[in-house]
Amino acid sequence: MQLLGRSFIGFSRSTGTQPCAQAVNPATGETLSPQYVGATAAEVDKALALAAAAFPAYCDLTGKRRAGFLRAIAANIEAAVEDIAARGPQETGLPEARMRGETARTTGQLRMFAALLEEGSWVDARIERAIPDRAPVPKPDLRSMLRPLGPVAVFCASNFPLAFSVAGGDSAAALAAGCPVIVIAHASHPGVAEIVASAVTMAAQETGMPEGVFSLLYGGGRTVGQAVAGHPAIQAVGFTGSRAAGLALMATAAARPQPIPVYAEMSSVNPLVILPGALDRGEAALAEAYYASLTLGVGQFCTNPGLVFMPDDQGGGFLERLAELIAAGSPGTMLNASIRQAYADATRGFESVPGVKVLARCNATPGHGQGAPLAFTVAIADFVKSHALQGEMFGPAALIVRGSLTEIKQAVTGLEGQLTASIFGTEDELAAHADLAQLLQQRAGRLIFNGFPTGVEVCSSMVHGGPFPATSDGRSTSVGTMAIHRFCRPVAWQGFPQSGLPAELRDDNPLGIRRMENGV
Amino acid sequence: MQLLGRSFIGFSRSTGTQPCAQAVNPATGETLSPQYVGATAAEVDKALALAAAAFPAYCDLTGKRRAGFLRAIAANIEAAVEDIAARGPQETGLPEARMRGETARTTGQLRMFAALLEEGSWVDARIERAIPDRAPVPKPDLRSMLRPLGPVAVFCASNFPLAFSVAGGDSAAALAAGCPVIVIAHASHPGVAEIVASAVTMAAQETGMPEGVFSLLYGGGRTVGQAVAGHPAIQAVGFTGSRAAGLALMATAAARPQPIPVYAEMSSVNPLVILPGALDRGEAALAEAYYASLTLGVGQFCTNPGLVFMPDDQGGGFLERLAELIAAGSPGTMLNASIRQAYADATRGFESVPGVKVLARCNATPGHGQGAPLAFTVAIADFVKSHALQGEMFGPAALIVRGSLTEIKQAVTGLEGQLTASIFGTEDELAAHADLAQLLQQRAGRLIFNGFPTGVEVCSSMVHGGPFPATSDGRSTSVGTMAIHRFCRPVAWQGFPQSGLPAELRDDNPLGIRRMENGV
Repeated sequence: MQLLGRSFIGFSRSTGTQPCAQAVNPATGETLSPQYVGATAAEVDKALALAAAAFPAYCDLTGKRRAGFLRAIAANIEAAVEDIAARGPQETGLPEARMRGETARTTGQLRMFAALLEEGSWVDARIERAIPDRAPVPKPDLRSMLRPLGPVAVFCASNFPLAFSVAGGDSAAALAAGCPVIVIAHASHPGVAEIVASAVTMAAQETGMPEGVFSLLYGGGRTVGQAVAGHPAIQAVGFTGSRAAGLALMATAAARPQPIPVYAEMSSVNPLVILPGALDRGEAALAEAYYASLTLGVGQFCTNPGLVFMPDDQGGGFLERLAELIAAGSPGTMLNASIRQAYADATRGFESVPGVKVLARCNATPGHGQGAPLAFTVAIADFVKSHALQGEMFGPAALIVRGSLTEIKQAVTGLEGQLTASIFGTEDELAAHADLAQLLQQRAGRLIFNGFPTGVEVCSSMVHGGPFPATSDGRSTSVGTMAIHRFCRPVAWQGFPQSGLPAELRDDNPLGIRRMENGV
Repeated sequence: MQLLGRSFIGFSRSTGTQPCAQAVNPATGETLSPQYVGATAAEVDKALALAAAAFPAYCDLTGKRRAGFLRAIAANIEAAVEDIAARGPQETGLPEARMRGETARTTGQLRMFAALLEEGSWVDARIERAIPDRAPVPKPDLRSMLRPLGPVAVFCASNFPLAFSVAGGDSAAALAAGCPVIVIAHASHPGVAEIVASAVTMAAQETGMPEGVFSLLYGGGRTVGQAVAGHPAIQAVGFTGSRAAGLALMATAAARPQPIPVYAEMSSVNPLVILPGALDRGEAALAEAYYASLTLGVGQFCTNPGLVFMPDDQGGGFLERLAELIAAGSPGTMLNASIRQAYADATRGFESVPGVKVLARCNATPGHGQGAPLAFTVAIADFVKSHALQGEMFGPAALIVRGSLTEIKQAVTGLEGQLTASIFGTEDELAAHADLAQLLQQRAGRLIFNGFPTGVEVCSSMVHGGPFPATSDGRSTSVGTMAIHRFCRPVAWQGFPQSGLPAELRDDNPLGIRRMENGV
């Protein structure tokens, strides 16, 4: 498709003239056409007004109608996969196969939510019937279900141009819940955003959705993004990115006359704890599997396993093999110049902490925009002295912390919140160190046994979230069907006649959904 | 029981010496013994350390064990009902019958959560089994359930010395979820707090709960309360009270190195919209029912219906009868001197707004500490000009806003968030004005048809919450079984052996709970 470089304001395109972003091929430094122009302040206001106006109509559509919209988005994105596969690698340095895979994941997510809507029971309908003659006071007829919060602002993520961007997890969950969505594009991949936004807008028109159910704004997170997050029409924010930007959004949301929820996924180093039994099974194989997870996507996953705890008196073979792999590894093109720079800065910062030693560096010299695998080791006594070592090196770098199991358990109690935590060992060790699993459980959203955190299954039992600072709000997940709860609140109807109730709560249960009746 | 005037620090009592509060009988101004002394800073720290230490053991108890604790609390509170019935009215001005009724509600809530734990399905267990040969990548075994957040701070409410205080809704929900609780007593009813805290502490000892699962602190919300809310051990806050105090807690929670959720129930005027059909059914009877709700508990309920919208060309009989009732009504003793003063200030403030007229005042002169029923009217054109008229007059005062139905719908769009909103009319009117119901739904947690909001049923479908500023977080309820979700987050286990999984997630389902398997 022809890229126009302009925001989607409901069903119209921006007529702004202020240049705001131009994609850069991180592998070459080459600037990519077109020049993107920012939405004007009036256009931003118009997108917000359209979203607010669309909400009453959109949230009252049947689940089947909204499902039809989501399925149409998925179909239109699939139809655009060649455009995505051509443009995506140029903007992000990610390979074409990743673009196709992420497209499939994104359309899969949309269809997962469509199926959830078609089935309908997700609304948690509860009915308590009246007992008019109850003493001392009559019991009223009371029914409740989840209802959407209102228009939602979604920020695209640099590292997932599809699955966590325009029509990614938060957008799909919010649209499924019944919330109009305003997406703020990421300057790193404006072209992919435009392709996907075009697919969403066409789907909205094809399926008769109200204008304003979707808009896409170019213009920078700091200006347009903060303006949107602070606007009274917006009722929740979804964000994936840096801790600094996430904290800024949280501050904006908290300072509004009406504070709103912010779901910011910020930083996680996804600790691994390697117990002796895992080493006994084969140190070299474990190192190879770890290296594969660490360097997947040039280490640019929120679930990248950047921190490893292991015994200080074992594991020489693991370290030796890991060092070989890193030395012989390949640098990879990172998502953009600022991520590349942040990676260099973070690794340099770690190296300057007392006690931190380089285990191995990649022998190959990184090319333009590339980051190279790297591993540090540190004694646990030095690790616990430096809070900086809990920071994220967003990229293919590892910090290996060595200590006794007692020291490791102690250090785990001081860890910040994480998306994931993994334990490697035998089943007997897991049982013998149940306290370790519990300590990790208190600090993470997902616990993994003998597996690596990269690769996030999209399903009903996935929890992709975790205590602060992994996310701003560890009470929810951004992946899987449970994500729809982010954008809902319960509402109760008391004493309403059948004609005044939503279909989900009527006596005849016209949608045939599962419901709780009188507490059962 | 003998009141000692001292905090409960786990299973010990405070040895502080700094006087902090003494109850005052609001009906007489008489000071009540004993003198309460504040917990020392070291004791506050100790209570927090005990709670943090208790959490790992407490959260891993079976639901049945925690249910036993809740049932023991309920039994001990019931055993203390004569003490409560004697002390409560002196501290709060509320009648003895209310003390007994609220005691029953409180023990009922505790047993409701006990039953929820005994049944066990509330954890939302989800199991997705592995598909090792799935292409392109194997599907892992992934299971999730809700887990407790950690120690919770609960602030007692002035207006519900039992049901929203020491062992009230938030405490019961948090203890049920598996969270230790630190309660901050309210200076208005320290004696009732001590009686209930004693019941809780005895129950913890009787049922073998870890010390620190419960503490009660005296010392003032501004000092002790803020210190507790800001302490790293605390993972959530429950609060019911003024908007200023709730906003201060939200600011404290947001400014922590690790921000935490705050569930603050703050202010709501619970609008009523009266449509012509409701007047046709009998204006006098409607006025009588409204007056009863308005003046229940001297108007000191969060669900008090302080704001009424009605047609400007009808309803003369309603207003006439309401005026008669108010004129002939009785002043009532308010909860404490500052609430009494705030009521006087708020009603004076309303009276000074241009266009506001007094419909009726109570003829009787209020006695010591009393507030009297009062009603104002205002034309809707004046109402929408003054944001101050959306404020709460906490007490038995009404603002009647008169306008056309079109104007009323317009005014409703400008309303702040509410706990409840009520519509009075015929079923045909409800259908004809579905937009009105939808507008109110966007602003309230509970919609009521032909009924008054006072009287909050404790059940599985109750939603006692609503958009800001009714509460700080409209995504949850403080009443009913859904309240347990406030203090939980989902956690996933990936690739764990059966022996390493919680009972709720094991293949053999030893607890026999309802679970979602492979999305169904």
